[in-house]
Amino acid sequence: MAQDGAAAAASLDVKAIGVGIVILGAGLGIGKIGSSAVESIARQPEAAGAIQTAMIIAGALIEGATLFGLIICML
Amino acid sequence: MAQDGAAAAASLDVKAIGVGIVILGAGLGIGKIGSSAVESIARQPEAAGAIQTAMIIAGALIEGATLFGLIICML
Amino acid sequence: MAQDGAAAAASLDVKAIGVGIVILGAGLGIGKIGSSAVESIARQPEAAGAIQTAMIIAGALIEGATLFGLIICML
Repeated sequence: MAQDGAAAAASLDVKAIGVGIVILGAGLGIGKIGSSAVESIARQPEAAGAIQTAMIIAGALIEGATLFGLIICML
Repeated sequence: MAQDGAAAAASLDVKAIGVGIVILGAGLGIGKIGSSAVESIARQPEAAGAIQTAMIIAGALIEGATLFGLIICML
Repeated sequence: MAQDGAAAAASLDVKAIGVGIVILGAGLGIGKIGSSAVESIARQPEAAGAIQTAMIIAGALIEGATLFGLIICML
């Protein structure tokens, strides 16, 4: 029983590292998009609508893959 | 039995690290595309439609490979 | 039997890390193509069609190799 518990604990640990790498990727990706988007709106304020649409689409692509990855990590 | 449990747990663990690296790749890739897309729209607002189409096609290529990779990780 | 199970589990584990590295490569590659494509469309909006065709061909080459690599990881 003690061995089973140790195995389960080790399992949860390394999963958490996977979750960390998932969010690292998502954070870098969405961070880069958001950063470029606000700089672009500052350069061309009249294009703010088109820039925001593009930002939301690209961000949603990353967000979708991230949530799916997090659910797999949780299994 | 305890050994079997430990093996199964170790299996799931390292999978989560694989899932993390998958999302790291997807995040960096889609992030770079989205970032360039919003900067490009700011430079040529009248080309926003063509830029957004190209962004979605390239993003979908990465997204498709990512979801396929995540499903393989889940197996 | 317990040893067989452990070997099979360890095999699956490290496969997932391989899958992650595959998608990392695909994401970086297609990301760089998509990023350059949208910047090129912004610089020469009238060449948007030719740029998009070239982007899809290059992206599909990476996508094809990626899917083949993922299937090999799955075996």
